Formats: sequence, C-alpha cells, structure tokens
Amino acid sequence: MKINTEKLKEIVGKDNVRDNIADLYVYASDASVHRNIPDVVVRPQTIGQVQDIMRYAYQHKIPVVPRGAGSGMSGQTVPLNGGIVLDMKCMDNIIEIRPEDVLCKVESGVVNDELNRALKPYGFFFPPTPSSGRICTIGGMIGNNASGIRSVKYGATRDAVIGMKVVLANGDLVTLGSNTRVDSSGYQLAKLMVGSEGTLGVVVEATLQISPLPKFRAMGVANFDTLEDAGRMISETIAQGITPSMLELMDNVAITAVNNAQHLGLPDVAAIVVFECNGMVREAVDFDMKRIANICEKNKGTDIRVSDDPVEMTRIYEGRKKLFPSLSKYGEGLFTTALADDMAVPMSKISETVHEIHTIAKRNHVVMSAYGHCGAGLIHTKILMDTRKKSQWQDAKKAVKEVYEFVHSVGGTTSGEHGIGFSKGPAWKKEKKDSLEMMRSIKKALDPYNILNPGKLMDSPDDWLTATALRYQTISK
Amino acid sequence: MKINTEKLKEIVGKDNVRDNIADLYVYASDASVHRNIPDVVVRPQTIGQVQDIMRYAYQHKIPVVPRGAGSGMSGQTVPLNGGIVLDMKCMDNIIEIRPEDVLCKVESGVVNDELNRALKPYGFFFPPTPSSGRICTIGGMIGNNASGIRSVKYGATRDAVIGMKVVLANGDLVTLGSNTRVDSSGYQLAKLMVGSEGTLGVVVEATLQISPLPKFRAMGVANFDTLEDAGRMISETIAQGITPSMLELMDNVAITAVNNAQHLGLPDVAAIVVFECNGMVREAVDFDMKRIANICEKNKGTDIRVSDDPVEMTRIYEGRKKLFPSLSKYGEGLFTTALADDMAVPMSKISETVHEIHTIAKRNHVVMSAYGHCGAGLIHTKILMDTRKKSQWQDAKKAVKEVYEFVHSVGGTTSGEHGIGFSKGPAWKKEKKDSLEMMRSIKKALDPYNILNPGKLMDSPDDWLTATALRYQTISK
Repeated sequence: MKINTEKLKEIVGKDNVRDNIADLYVYASDASVHRNIPDVVVRPQTIGQVQDIMRYAYQHKIPVVPRGAGSGMSGQTVPLNGGIVLDMKCMDNIIEIRPEDVLCKVESGVVNDELNRALKPYGFFFPPTPSSGRICTIGGMIGNNASGIRSVKYGATRDAVIGMKVVLANGDLVTLGSNTRVDSSGYQLAKLMVGSEGTLGVVVEATLQISPLPKFRAMGVANFDTLEDAGRMISETIAQGITPSMLELMDNVAITAVNNAQHLGLPDVAAIVVFECNGMVREAVDFDMKRIANICEKNKGTDIRVSDDPVEMTRIYEGRKKLFPSLSKYGEGLFTTALADDMAVPMSKISETVHEIHTIAKRNHVVMSAYGHCGAGLIHTKILMDTRKKSQWQDAKKAVKEVYEFVHSVGGTTSGEHGIGFSKGPAWKKEKKDSLEMMRSIKKALDPYNILNPGKLMDSPDDWLTATALRYQTISK
Repeated sequence: MKINTEKLKEIVGKDNVRDNIADLYVYASDASVHRNIPDVVVRPQTIGQVQDIMRYAYQHKIPVVPRGAGSGMSGQTVPLNGGIVLDMKCMDNIIEIRPEDVLCKVESGVVNDELNRALKPYGFFFPPTPSSGRICTIGGMIGNNASGIRSVKYGATRDAVIGMKVVLANGDLVTLGSNTRVDSSGYQLAKLMVGSEGTLGVVVEATLQISPLPKFRAMGVANFDTLEDAGRMISETIAQGITPSMLELMDNVAITAVNNAQHLGLPDVAAIVVFECNGMVREAVDFDMKRIANICEKNKGTDIRVSDDPVEMTRIYEGRKKLFPSLSKYGEGLFTTALADDMAVPMSKISETVHEIHTIAKRNHVVMSAYGHCGAGLIHTKILMDTRKKSQWQDAKKAVKEVYEFVHSVGGTTSGEHGIGFSKGPAWKKEKKDSLEMMRSIKKALDPYNILNPGKLMDSPDDWLTATALRYQTISK
C-alpha cells in the first residue's frame, strides 16, 4: 500500500497530515491491550475534506480508521491493517442547540463533557455518561453505543441519537434519521450506524435528543454479605418499576482495590450497592429512595445510608468513582487490562455471573473484579495480572474465553457498552454465529473494498492475543 | 409467475393455503386506500414452515408479503406484485414472560392487547399503544415501528424490541439482538428490522422489554382559542422535563367531527389538549399534573380540568377516543382516507404545521383534521373527501404533496408511526433522496431477488394514486 501524503496534504493542509514515528506511535493504540502502527494520521476540519479523503482512499483501496479520543477498550481504533487514521477531533463544532425542540446538532468530534457544559445554561444535558466523558467524542460514543452509569434510567447513545450525517466509503454524504422523537420513515440507518464501530461510514454530524437537567437528586449506599442478596436487591428494584438514575455494584475485589489505593476504609463485604434517584420533584425522588432503601433492607442490606447532601453524596460515590484507577493497586505487580470488561446479562443472572467470574479468575491465576451498572444488566470486569509474564496472557486468554462462554450460556451478550473491536471478536463471533453472514453482506454492500476499519467485528482475527503487538511489555515467561 | 400450491400445502397443510377469490379479496387490502389481489394466502404455524415457504419462494423468485392484522394505513401489506401473502396470525404463542428479567418472548402473530392481558397478572405491560391494539400483531408493530398515545413517555416499538428471530429471504433463520437492556455487541440488526416493513426478512419471534404497570394516573384537559397557544403549551411541557404519559391535540375539525357523530358537546374552540400522567407515586403524578395545568393557564388555556376519577377520566378521553370513527361524520358525503396521516415535526413546529395543513386542505377542496400525539411531535391527519368523485382524488393527491413539502421544509419527517408502504413512497423518496441508494444496497444484499414485499419503500411507484386499484369506488368525475 502506497499512500500519497502529498495528495492528503492538498486536501487538509500539511499541518493536518502526520507521518512521523512519534505521532504514528500515539495513534497505534487506544485503551485496549493492542498496538499497531498506522501509515499516516489525517485530521480533517470539514465534511468536504472527509469526503475527499474517502474518495482518495476508495480509489486506492486504502484502509481508513475513524477515531475520536481513542478511549475505546476493545481495539476499535487500532489500525490493524495500517492505512489512514482519521482523527475527527478537529471537527468539534456544536452546530445548534434547540431547547424548544429538545435536540442539538453537533459535529462528531465534540467532546461529551464540553457538550454538557454548553447545554447546561439551557437547563439540558446529554444523558449518556461514559467514564471517559472528559475526553471521549460524540463520534466515538456513536461508534461504540456508549452508555455509562445513567443508562439504567436514560438508555445508551443509540437511544439519544435521532439523526446524523455520514460519509460513506465512496465519499458520498448521506443524511440519516430525522429531527423528531418518533420516526417510522423506513430503514432506520442512523440506529444501524450506532455501534458499527466505524466499519460502515464516517459519522461527521449527529442530531441528539437532550434531556432536561433534573432539579433534585439523592444518593444511597448499602452493604451486602452475599452477592446473591445484592443481585436480588438490584433486580427487585427494577422489576418494581423504580427508575433509579444510577444503580451500581462493587464486588469485594473492587472494594479491596479502592481501599488499597485510596484508604477510604470501605467495609470488607461481598458487595456494595450505590444508588441514585433524580427528578424534577423532590417528593418523588425521596419516595423512590425510600423504596430502594426498603428493598435493600428486605434483601439483608446493612449500613444503609441515604442522603441528598452534596458533600455526603460525593463521599458515597467516591469509592465507585475512583474504582477504575484503583484497580492496578489491588496487588503488587498486578496490572489492569481491559479484557472481558463489559458483558451484559439478564437482570436475574447478575449475582450468578459475578460468582462465576470469580471462580474462573481463580482457576486461571488472574484476579477479576466485577462492578458496574448492574441496574441495566451491565457487569464490568478488568483482568488484573502480571502483564510482564507471557504465561499470564495465556491465563487471561483462557479466562476471557470461559467468562464469555458462561455469559452466553445464561443468555447474556458479549458487550454491553464498550463495543467489540477485535479484543472481543472471538467470543462475539461465537455469540452471533448465525447472523455473521448477514452482517458481512451489509458491510460488503456499503463498503465493497473493505476499507472502513477493516479487521474488526465479523472480520476480526480468531485469536485476539496474537493479532497485534501488545501495548504491554512482556519480559519473562 | 406460476405458484405450486400443492408444494405449499405440503408445507403448511391444505387448510392453511387459500386461493379462492373470496379469501384473496380479503387479503388484497389493508387500512390504506389501495387494493391488489395476491395469488395465494399461506398461514404458517411454525418457524420451520416459514423457512420452507421462503426457501420455495426464493428458488422460484416469488414475491412474499408478510402480514399481521392488515391494519397498516400505507399499503404495507397490499401485494403490489401479487405472489404469496404470508398470514402470520397463527403464530401467536406467548413463549415466556420473565418479570425478573423485565422481558417477554413472543411469536410475531401475538395480538398487542392479548399480550397485555397476559402481562397484567405479573404487574407489567408492553408500552406501545397503537389504536389498532385490539387486532394488530407484534409482528406488524415491528414492521411499522408502531407507537401510539403513550410514545411521549415510553417511545415506540423500536425502543422496546431488544431481540428477535427472523427468517431471511433465502430461508435462513437468524437470531438478532439480545436479552439485555444495554447492548453494544456490533451491528444492531434487530433495530434495523423494526420499521423495515417486511422487506428485509420475516420476523417470527421477538424479545420485548416490558414495563411495570403504573399504580396511579390522572388526566386533564384544556381548551385553546388559538393553535399557537396549544402548540406552545405542548412544547413547553416537554421542555420543562415533564414526562406525561399522554399529550394529545384535537383541532377544530376533529372537535366538529366528534360533536357531529357523538353529540358530546365539546366546545367549539381552535384546539383541545388532553394530557395524562402516570407513575408509581401519587404525589409525583399530582405534582406533574399541576405543573401541566399551570403551563396550560400560562398559555391561555381555558376550562382546565384535572381528575383522577376513573369515570371523569373516561369522559375527558371520550372525545379523543372516538375521533377516528367520527371523522367520516364531519360532513355529508365526506369519507375518511388514510393519506398524509402521521407526519412528525420538531416540537416547536406543531402549531405552524397544523395551520398549514388547514390552508392546504382548503386550497385543494378537501377537509383535513389534525390531531394526535403532539407530545412526541406526531401529527395525525386524515383527508376527508367525496371518495366517489375522481376529481377529489386528484385534489387529495395535490394536498398530500403539499403537506409533505411543508413538513419537510420545517425539518419534519414523512411518517412518525404508520410507516411508508407505498402511499407515502413519493414524498418519502424525496425526503430520503440521498440515502435511497444506501437502502437499496442493503435490501439487495439481504434479498437479492427482491422477493420480500417488493414495490414498497425505496421501490415504491412514483404515483401512489395510479399504483393499484382503489379500495373505494369512484362513480363520477
């Protein structure tokens, strides 16, 4: 593959084409375990430039990997086959905010938190809340159907995206979806684009439903001596028609990690559940908090606390908030890897799944913590292991395989919010085996030369571990 | 096209293959204005039979039109090219109800109201509420992304469908989606199937998210002297973060029709708005009702009444409920036609659009009423005209064209909940002109011989009026 960087410089200007090794190295990895160097990084400023880049790539059959902040955990933006990385972060205009229509229009490089800062004066927010909100872009959130702690109430990115502009593989610009809450106008291609990980087109603009900022909120916490009790508490809350704005689980590994790293003195119990309700009416928030607290009690929750004091709420949430950065402090020489990190299971299978994750981890000589947005059926894990040892990667590979086998056996799905990329390719291809052909035919129809983010999803390698170099250095067997 | 009915009888048994003219006539039309006779009607009982039928049709390139109750208003199930009508109503098993997982699994022939009767003892319901709920099937609702009066709170069918089984054109069976609330596992083909009107596959089974039945509800009504005031009241309610479970508009034509037909003595005002809130907490319902009543007052609403008394609520809703059957009583010799019947516009454009609809109707010598789920941006109309006169059909055709031109000019979309079929084909193809090629390539990838409901959506005729015989008899110029 010979890429004519001069041609690309003509399109976007020379400062926006990078092919020195330092830059390429930065764009070789995301938040996954993988690493592979692209040939060139291009930063378009306009839709027209994206179209010209795609026309050039289409003509010469050059791979193009659209990229937001690179905070994906499954290798979505690792350029498996080299080629062009299309850094969309310069297309960061908030085009319009229309509170009267309860929507906004943005370019896909807009950062989630910046959008929310812009919406705040209007009394609105954009509900999906990935923990990478400080850096992640709307385009990346669309690519992965990101959600986060508020998904239990507000759903995921797909639920909030009602329209978009997309540049197709051949450079054509299409407008998908609409400006309206309800829409039965034929194929809903905007919804198909959400979660397609840059393999079907480059999202350049999005129309987003926004939500009114709640006026009141309260937070609560309860401890549980068994995972079963915590799991029952979670599914009972949902089944009773309560809609908390957050319903989070932390298992003992997570608690230990936070205590080791932050010295918060969280209790050494099997599980902590943190919950929040929000709304426009204080009485309704209080009422629901009381109901959740009662469900905690009924399921043997202890040390149940509820508060709407901002300082106390910050304290309650502190452990959960600092969990991810704390994980690498769980034990000496154990590093955090984003593997088998976001499966979703039917509500009633949460505690059983968390249990099994611990068993599998133990059997395979790694540590796995389970936590996450269990109110939406989402379980986060990370594999903690000595990434310097080659054997630990084999352990991890086995653990990953076993976790997904279990998740699928209880009717769960491979990814709840982080996407498939190629880290999860082997497990996901098994889960979706009867529809892979259907997906491939849609991909081929829209991208006949397979230039858009090739090697992901249904085309991902059968062994994630050997698919690329690792972002971690191994120094021993 | 020569169809071997013996072969079909082998598959489904002879009682489930019908080709006598009386049966064929019944299956020639739906609730649209169109009519065209199929060659044969087949009623499968099992997924395997659907697969065998599709394999046969695929081999012989025979058109297949999947059909639920035939209550669609846009010609979706009118067999434009003849062939097989696949009546799915016999596949009506409720497979499982899992309150602990907040979902149920059903065959696609299950009727909406029957599902709700089955869910009630568990304290749950399936939120989409088409007015045809008494007869329409889950499969038909999926085909059209049906919604109804509760969409302002609960969204449409697409929001509630999380997974499905689909028989593809070639007879392959695929499982799409998952059993979980959040799902980032690659292409969301279940969401693509919703609204595809039977052109991409035959939905045979669906996994549906269910919602807890609200414990309390209250209803209110207000009159408005101008459409502008009513429109402002509606968009202000939504923008303030209130989530009514219903927010319905009736214009003066609708009011007159109901009074003529039902003698309810509704006030002769420009608009009546009916609203409802529901929930698990009485205080929250009351609080929101009070807020909506205040917004009515602020926008010059008069005779504002709010009640949670079942008898009074029935009375408040009576006019809206009887609206559709009343429309044909608006004036002597004016019959109701489902044309331009469900556009959606941005919230702030509702009153402007209703105004323009009246102007267009007047200019074209027909009567158009505007009403519907305005809280979700949805405007219903019907064209009232003397269907016996040929010239009135030309008038209607012109009015339809002008209405859609206006709706598109304010950023609205052709169909909010009834689907495109081919009645709305000409307008919709204009709206979607830059993505029709993309849709065609997806259709071709999944249905290479174009046997699944051909002639609909992007393949619909350019003139709906001459596309088929009409379901109405014209007797004069």
